[in-house]
Amino acid sequence: MVGVLITFEGPDGGGKTTQLGLLADHLRRRGHTVVCTREPGGTALGDKIRCLLLDPANAAMAPCTEALLYMAARAQHVAEVIAPALGRGEVVLSDRYADSTLVYQGTARRLGREDLDAINLFATGGVTPDLTILLESDDATLDGRVAGRGDADRIEGEAAAFHALVREGFRELAAAEPDRVKAVAADGGVDEVHRAVVEIVEEFFCRRAYG
Amino acid sequence: MVGVLITFEGPDGGGKTTQLGLLADHLRRRGHTVVCTREPGGTALGDKIRCLLLDPANAAMAPCTEALLYMAARAQHVAEVIAPALGRGEVVLSDRYADSTLVYQGTARRLGREDLDAINLFATGGVTPDLTILLESDDATLDGRVAGRGDADRIEGEAAAFHALVREGFRELAAAEPDRVKAVAADGGVDEVHRAVVEIVEEFFCRRAYG
Repeated sequence: MVGVLITFEGPDGGGKTTQLGLLADHLRRRGHTVVCTREPGGTALGDKIRCLLLDPANAAMAPCTEALLYMAARAQHVAEVIAPALGRGEVVLSDRYADSTLVYQGTARRLGREDLDAINLFATGGVTPDLTILLESDDATLDGRVAGRGDADRIEGEAAAFHALVREGFRELAAAEPDRVKAVAADGGVDEVHRAVVEIVEEFFCRRAYG
Repeated sequence: MVGVLITFEGPDGGGKTTQLGLLADHLRRRGHTVVCTREPGGTALGDKIRCLLLDPANAAMAPCTEALLYMAARAQHVAEVIAPALGRGEVVLSDRYADSTLVYQGTARRLGREDLDAINLFATGGVTPDLTILLESDDATLDGRVAGRGDADRIEGEAAAFHALVREGFRELAAAEPDRVKAVAADGGVDEVHRAVVEIVEEFFCRRAYG
């Protein structure tokens, strides 16, 4: 039996973590075995890499270094958590995955997507998401939510122009892969967004079973 | 003015660090400005990555993760230390560089060289060594020197079969790129090896100036 990998993507402040938890509860009630995880991190070693990536003390980090550290954390995440769970036939929900590197480092840091696509393939061994939920908000909503969290980490502390490129990169992603990447307007209430997510996921499972 | 990048490669215990220091003294006496550095590490961030790589507590590290962490440290090393020094026309001596990843992860961890060549290019932005000194010893000498250091790090603690593949990988490297990679028998005394290294380096500078 082969499992399912569903990823949540989008800018910070779009409610990914909340919606991932609600979807996990929903799927468990339907009888699925669900693994919830996140990037960067998801493993003990990945969490150490996460600390290097988000620590504002590492402000001198070169864009290529940043991309490769995300890739290193991802390689460990796939080897230790995602691939084994998929092999057991479970549903894996990941808060960010390979698309985040394409958008943050490829588009917003201007490293381009071609090299990063190839390195993602090396890091993941070809484990790609079956379905990606992109949580989109208007810019004012996102800025307000992130500001409400207090001290910004190294990525959150980037200038507004960087975050505008991130939003643009995610829009391009959804346009390029409409079958896999489903955008949800995240400006509504938590329950409303959850219902939209569930509808997409139910349709995915239906297509998968009978399509 | 364009500088020169000379790298020292070879298995642990071959005397790379000692020979690098002696060569630096020699070149400074000849009037060169010399930067001595090493991998993994060479920068504050790189040293933090080095700790993750060598800590025996991280025994569950996947081969791809290991390769990508070395690459991340290298990207920072090039951006922060090597490329600026070359731009100032200095001589950079590095204790290990891109070849080590090809040999340790490509050959000994069996990840293959093709992906790693491409990722090295991404990490270094195309900064390749002008000259590489490969310090080769017979296997018994190396094993004795490394054992004499006390507690082994995560890489030194690998099984003998791994280190045999490393030695084989370095031999292949020298055979594949004879113009750049110059092997020196490291079994002699420190002074004897130093004289052999100086001869290679002087010939390199001569060829570069008049070749």
